[in-house]
Amino acid sequence: MPATPMSIFDQQLDQNSANYATLTPVSFLERSAQVYPKRTAIVHGTLRRSWLETWQRCRRLASALQGLGIKAGETVSIIAPNIPEHYEAHFAVPMSGAVLNSINTRLDPEAVAFIMEHAETRVLLVDREFSTVVSRALKLMPRKPIVIDIDDPQYEGGELIGQMRYEELLAKGDEQFIYTPPDDEWRAISLNYTSGTTGNPKGVVYHHRGAYLNALSNIVSWGMTEKPVYLWTLPMFHCNGWCFPWALAAVSGTNVCLRHVRVEPIFELIRKEGVDHFCGAPIVLNMLNGGPQALKEGIEHKVKVMTAGAAPPASVIEGMEALGFSVTHVYGLTETYGPSVVCAWKGEWDELSLTERARLKSRQGVKAPMLEGLMVADPVTLEPVPADGITIGEIMMRGNLVMRGYLKNPSASEEAFAGGWFHSGDLAVCHPDNYIEIKDRSKDVIISGGENISSIEVEDILYRHPKVREAAVVARPDEKWGETPCAFIDASGEVTAEEIIEFCRANMAHFKVPKTVVFGELPKTSTGKIQKYLLRNRTKEL
Amino acid sequence: MPATPMSIFDQQLDQNSANYATLTPVSFLERSAQVYPKRTAIVHGTLRRSWLETWQRCRRLASALQGLGIKAGETVSIIAPNIPEHYEAHFAVPMSGAVLNSINTRLDPEAVAFIMEHAETRVLLVDREFSTVVSRALKLMPRKPIVIDIDDPQYEGGELIGQMRYEELLAKGDEQFIYTPPDDEWRAISLNYTSGTTGNPKGVVYHHRGAYLNALSNIVSWGMTEKPVYLWTLPMFHCNGWCFPWALAAVSGTNVCLRHVRVEPIFELIRKEGVDHFCGAPIVLNMLNGGPQALKEGIEHKVKVMTAGAAPPASVIEGMEALGFSVTHVYGLTETYGPSVVCAWKGEWDELSLTERARLKSRQGVKAPMLEGLMVADPVTLEPVPADGITIGEIMMRGNLVMRGYLKNPSASEEAFAGGWFHSGDLAVCHPDNYIEIKDRSKDVIISGGENISSIEVEDILYRHPKVREAAVVARPDEKWGETPCAFIDASGEVTAEEIIEFCRANMAHFKVPKTVVFGELPKTSTGKIQKYLLRNRTKEL
Repeated sequence: MPATPMSIFDQQLDQNSANYATLTPVSFLERSAQVYPKRTAIVHGTLRRSWLETWQRCRRLASALQGLGIKAGETVSIIAPNIPEHYEAHFAVPMSGAVLNSINTRLDPEAVAFIMEHAETRVLLVDREFSTVVSRALKLMPRKPIVIDIDDPQYEGGELIGQMRYEELLAKGDEQFIYTPPDDEWRAISLNYTSGTTGNPKGVVYHHRGAYLNALSNIVSWGMTEKPVYLWTLPMFHCNGWCFPWALAAVSGTNVCLRHVRVEPIFELIRKEGVDHFCGAPIVLNMLNGGPQALKEGIEHKVKVMTAGAAPPASVIEGMEALGFSVTHVYGLTETYGPSVVCAWKGEWDELSLTERARLKSRQGVKAPMLEGLMVADPVTLEPVPADGITIGEIMMRGNLVMRGYLKNPSASEEAFAGGWFHSGDLAVCHPDNYIEIKDRSKDVIISGGENISSIEVEDILYRHPKVREAAVVARPDEKWGETPCAFIDASGEVTAEEIIEFCRANMAHFKVPKTVVFGELPKTSTGKIQKYLLRNRTKEL
Repeated sequence: MPATPMSIFDQQLDQNSANYATLTPVSFLERSAQVYPKRTAIVHGTLRRSWLETWQRCRRLASALQGLGIKAGETVSIIAPNIPEHYEAHFAVPMSGAVLNSINTRLDPEAVAFIMEHAETRVLLVDREFSTVVSRALKLMPRKPIVIDIDDPQYEGGELIGQMRYEELLAKGDEQFIYTPPDDEWRAISLNYTSGTTGNPKGVVYHHRGAYLNALSNIVSWGMTEKPVYLWTLPMFHCNGWCFPWALAAVSGTNVCLRHVRVEPIFELIRKEGVDHFCGAPIVLNMLNGGPQALKEGIEHKVKVMTAGAAPPASVIEGMEALGFSVTHVYGLTETYGPSVVCAWKGEWDELSLTERARLKSRQGVKAPMLEGLMVADPVTLEPVPADGITIGEIMMRGNLVMRGYLKNPSASEEAFAGGWFHSGDLAVCHPDNYIEIKDRSKDVIISGGENISSIEVEDILYRHPKVREAAVVARPDEKWGETPCAFIDASGEVTAEEIIEFCRANMAHFKVPKTVVFGELPKTSTGKIQKYLLRNRTKEL
């Protein structure tokens, strides 16, 4: 008998299979197949498959993976563009009990090998386009996975390097396979490696519960309930496509595949397939803005665009609006299932000037509907900063949209979760309206003469210079000041260091003005992030 | 050490306060207050309160309830119409750790007393309109709760019967009260008594997880993401207003209160407040259809209506469409948090004739997005019936939208959950497209000469007779046939039993034709359900 009297509500009202089910996004697919069996689930060039067909293929794949000997809690990796097989893997791999590891297609063989070794990959699904890189990666691996070739008839090139083709594997599977939901919604569903601006990538573990909830969070915050037609511009290997494979199944929408992010097919698919939702970094939106006028004509329906990775500049927003596209700015990290913060737009802002709207939209925003906690706080005391738009702190999140942790790296997990909050490593302010705005990565802050300088703030001003195409500002060691800001600039046309410095002096506090300016192309990661640690190394040689 | 090797994904990737939060709909309110502090949360006549004000009032109420000595897992009851205090109770009571028991305002004193005794109510919030009934109920109770008066200045009549007013209680509370989420999302959030067509009502226990998920399920299936303006025609005491108090907070919409369901204020609020969503039984829709033409004019925005309790007849759908309202038919029970089945509409049906659309829409449909399982099956073997639209079985549900069980009634819970499915007691068929359609309550089936007769099927045909206002068909004991169908009819205008029988013979198989026809008003429960058990009793006296 318990020592304290139990509430009447805690007596004989236990969980059973009638009143409790583990949350898993696989249930979304099953429902779409039941309710909308004939509706188009996926379009890939000339190929169209319904929700029922997709479900049946996933049942086949799940059972075939088990047939290969895959057991619960083992890893299946995939290296593929945004094609139907990649979508299917998001359901079939968890249905088999395994964990999906979608690998960045831009990585070099060493990184691919590192990831598969670390993930202990048992089966690898690989598209022909990446056969060269993968062949090299496999050579580096002592324990090789079973390799399955995705042999997309709509792509020419590459080689078949595996034991069998994807379709052959499917043929071995059972279309009537009975899927068993996870016994615990905390079980891993996927494994995503950080792009790692420094050092080896870390393996971020997602669970069924979080995948389910972030799919819903996307739907609620982006208003995706009316059978959306979603274009796959965002790679599925990015935080599982920000959980959109699962979100699309939850609303029985249509997935429009795209092997390569190019202007022409994007506009063509928007028109032809009625695409009304897509995601992309501001650079993708810029690319669309810069596309030929003829391509842009004849789009009469509303298109919603979600962007992240950098604040969308006013020019990008303006160009998108001219096309009738509305841009939502979101923010997140691999560790938070992709977008977990959204710049929730308020109707009263519609009337503001473009500049003002761009300023408001450049902020990262507020917590997404299903994120539990978001704050900007002192990383040591965890005391939130005042909502004054000035005081800088670290962005921290908590709740069901935060990863389980880093695979086989308890010390990194512990550090990331210090004090019961996930430490993003991004520095921000909190505005009086509770919207947060990123000022810098914590390791990118420049400390000059005891003053903190936000590299992003200096970069923002550099970007306003008409000759600056890309800019990155890092700390350069300095005997007198400790550090000084050093600007690396990819310029369009002729411009001198003196002109840049003069421009900065006219637009910012003098202690923030770069003391050094270096011109040239900027080094980037496979996901397009500028590698500031390489630039910092370079400053030591200046 | 475990005997079998543990997956790498089950090592050192545990739950902590950074990556796990219990699901509770209270988090929706907190977020709305943070993100949309100034947006209107609630409108009640001339009163308007923002999300921040609502949150602050809920914090006050929760802390004041604790101040009254309320402990976790105790019951707070409320008897009130759809007014702001009732909305606040949906958050503040769970925030205090207590369980909300919203009592049907149409019950008699005995039933109210029975419920509060059974629920062990510690605090009762009561609106003046119900002071007479409640005073009588309290007299019947040996252990009386603390009574708090809701003293709505916009209502005249009734008396103050409690220890203090709601606003006085609030004044004792702390606006900065720090709310502690439940330590387990399985904890009870509310207690709703079945209307009970037979015997004593049963107390259905909801948990935080289910309330959270059904709120989302409503949003996803009804497309409620664009800041809906929701009119409170559906009583909040019905399955917690089908979980819409929580859904509205999740999307930061606006709640428009309504003390009495009357045609004039409904049309006025649709126009004045821009109401775009409301729920109501077909009889409410019919009432609107029958309203004066002048009231209906000038509504230019889209209005969505959700209906349940009976299939909306073609005439109701037609009338609603003429107003520009679109009707969604849902189905559920108190035991399933209200609507857990939805007649999901398919675009391709838009082109069909009104009759055909009404036929499709009269079906109960498919599982709601967050319901795990729905089937029509043999109640003993649990074998699903074939999807032929003919074979009758019992509707069964499973998953997170099914209650924890019946309070202090383990045998009823066990019976309801037999075989790991919730047995609804409703009989239905499953159509080839997987949509289910109710044919009868299991106890309402008439077995005549060994043939099953669906009382609903016979009633549907009776309703087509122009003189039939309401009809109910029940079994009458018969020496020869075992039972025969007996029709009770509330007629408009003159009509004879012979005419009714003749009409039936022309429209249904002869064994289904009522052998007896009785005219007169039909007995109903407080929620408007026809009490067939009373009619069955009457047949014994015929």
